[in-house]
Amino acid sequence: MKSVRQLGEDNLIARICGDLPKPAHVLVGPGDDCAVVGAGEELVLLKTDAVVAGIHFLHDAKSTRVGWKAVARVLSDFAAMGGEPGELLITLALAPEVSVDWVDGLYRGMSSCLEQHGGVIVGGETTSLPEGTPTMVSVAGKGRVARANLVTRSGGRPGDDIYVTGRLGGSIHGKHLDFTPRLREAAWLVNNSRITAMMDLSDGLAKDLPRLAQMSGVGFELNRDSLPCSEGSTLEQAIDDGEDYELLFTSSDDLKPAWDEKFPELEITRIGTLIEGAGDSIEGGWDHFQR
Amino acid sequence: MKSVRQLGEDNLIARICGDLPKPAHVLVGPGDDCAVVGAGEELVLLKTDAVVAGIHFLHDAKSTRVGWKAVARVLSDFAAMGGEPGELLITLALAPEVSVDWVDGLYRGMSSCLEQHGGVIVGGETTSLPEGTPTMVSVAGKGRVARANLVTRSGGRPGDDIYVTGRLGGSIHGKHLDFTPRLREAAWLVNNSRITAMMDLSDGLAKDLPRLAQMSGVGFELNRDSLPCSEGSTLEQAIDDGEDYELLFTSSDDLKPAWDEKFPELEITRIGTLIEGAGDSIEGGWDHFQR
Repeated sequence: MKSVRQLGEDNLIARICGDLPKPAHVLVGPGDDCAVVGAGEELVLLKTDAVVAGIHFLHDAKSTRVGWKAVARVLSDFAAMGGEPGELLITLALAPEVSVDWVDGLYRGMSSCLEQHGGVIVGGETTSLPEGTPTMVSVAGKGRVARANLVTRSGGRPGDDIYVTGRLGGSIHGKHLDFTPRLREAAWLVNNSRITAMMDLSDGLAKDLPRLAQMSGVGFELNRDSLPCSEGSTLEQAIDDGEDYELLFTSSDDLKPAWDEKFPELEITRIGTLIEGAGDSIEGGWDHFQR
Repeated sequence: MKSVRQLGEDNLIARICGDLPKPAHVLVGPGDDCAVVGAGEELVLLKTDAVVAGIHFLHDAKSTRVGWKAVARVLSDFAAMGGEPGELLITLALAPEVSVDWVDGLYRGMSSCLEQHGGVIVGGETTSLPEGTPTMVSVAGKGRVARANLVTRSGGRPGDDIYVTGRLGGSIHGKHLDFTPRLREAAWLVNNSRITAMMDLSDGLAKDLPRLAQMSGVGFELNRDSLPCSEGSTLEQAIDDGEDYELLFTSSDDLKPAWDEKFPELEITRIGTLIEGAGDSIEGGWDHFQR
C-alpha cells in the first residue's frame, strides 16, 4: 500500500480535492490561501492551519512565540486574499503532562498577535493526546473580503511582473516564530493598485511560485539575481527555505514608486515575469511528507 | 509547574477563556456548543472539533468510520444550537507512513456524512507529524442559524423539564463511530416548540447536564430511573459514558406527543427537572486530561 510519503503533499491534496463537490456559493475551494464563500458584496474567507511541536516549532520554543506563529499564519492567508481577519477557533491538542504555564503563554502570544493585527478568538477545543505525543495547535478562522478586493492565485496573466515583499530565506533562524502577517500591506495593494494574483510564501519560493503560475495557467521567468535575500541567507536559501510569510503577487502596474512612499520600511522587489508557455522551472521548497 | 492533567479540562478552558475579549458581534463565545457571531436575522455558527487515533478511535478503526465521526461531531454541535451545517475545513495531521488508502477512506466517510446531513468541504490543510505519532483529524465548520431559532445552553429556567433523545451509554461499542447527528430532530424542535436550552451529549450526562445547568444558573433533579439506557448498558454507563451524541434539552412544553408522532423511530425521554438552587450533583463523565 502506498504511503503519503511516497505520494507527496501536493499529490495528496490533489487526490483529496478531486472528489469534493463544489456548490455555486463556494467561489474558491481547496487550493488557494483561503476558501471563499458567499454571494454578496462582502465575501467570507475560511482558513485552517496547524503548528506541531518538532515540525513547526522546537520543543523548547517559548510558547508566546508559538501562539503568535499559530495565529499569524492564518492572518497571513487572509492577507494573501486581500482580506482581513474575523473570528478564530483554536484547537489545542496536548499530552496531559504539558504545563499550564506553557498554555498560558501560548494564549498570550495569540492574543498579542490579534491585538496588533485584528481578529478575535471565539472558541475552540481542547483534546488530549497520548503521553509523549507532540503538542499541536490548529487555528481555524473566518475572515472577510470585499468582493472587489478579492485576489486569488489564479488571476496572473502573461506579461505581469512578479513581486515579493521583504526578504527571503533563513526564516528558521527566528523570523518563522514572530513574522508580521502582511495585512496592512495587502490591504493597501488591493485598494490602490491592480493585483492580478497573490499568495503568501509559506513553503518556499521554489514551491509557491510554480503553484501560483500553474493556477494562473501561465509560466514564469525568474530573475534569480534580483532575489532579495535575508541577511545571512544564500540565494539557494531564499529560493528553497519555507516560512517566509511574505507576499508573492503579480501585476502589470509599476507598483514600486507608490509602494516605497507608503511603506518606506518594507521593500518590494520585482523578481520576474509571468509568460505564456512553460518558462523556468525551480526545484526545492518544503514538502510536508517527503522531508 | 502545574500540568494540564492536574488542572483538568474544564478548569483549563475556564482559564483560557477568562482572558479573551468578547466584542459585541460575538453573541456566544467559548463555552457553548458553537460560537455564534453576526448581527442580522441569520447568524453564523463556528465550531472546531478533532479526533485523535488512540483517543477518539482505535488505530485499526475503518477510516471511513473515522471520517464519518470527525464530521458528524461538528454537525452534532450545529444541531445543538438549532442550526444547520455550511462549509467545513479539514486539518489532516499524519505521519508520513500512513497509507493513501486510509486517507481515501477517511474522505469517503466524511463525504458520506455530508451528503446525508448537509455541509460541504471547502478546504483544509495537511501537515506532517513525526513518525509514529498518532493521526489527528480536526474539522472546523461554519454553520448558520436563524436568530429566532438559536438555542444556547444558558436559557434553562426552573421548572423546565429535561429531555434527551435516543438512548444513552455504551457508545464505545460502535455507535461513537457512526452516530446520527440530530440535525433533523433539532430543526424540528426549534421550529415547532419552545426549547429553552440545548446541547449535544459528548462527554457523558454526568459532565454535560451539570454544564447546562450551570450555564443556565439553575440546579437540576435527575430522575435516574427514567434514564433510557442503550441495550446492554447499565444505568451507570448511561450516566458516565461519553460520546452519546444525543440531544439534551429543556422546555416547559409537554413535547412528547408531537415528537412521537413526528419521530416514531427515535424516542425522547423526560429525565428530570431544572430547579432553583443547588439540586442534585452527579459524578463522572469524560475529562480529556484526567483519564
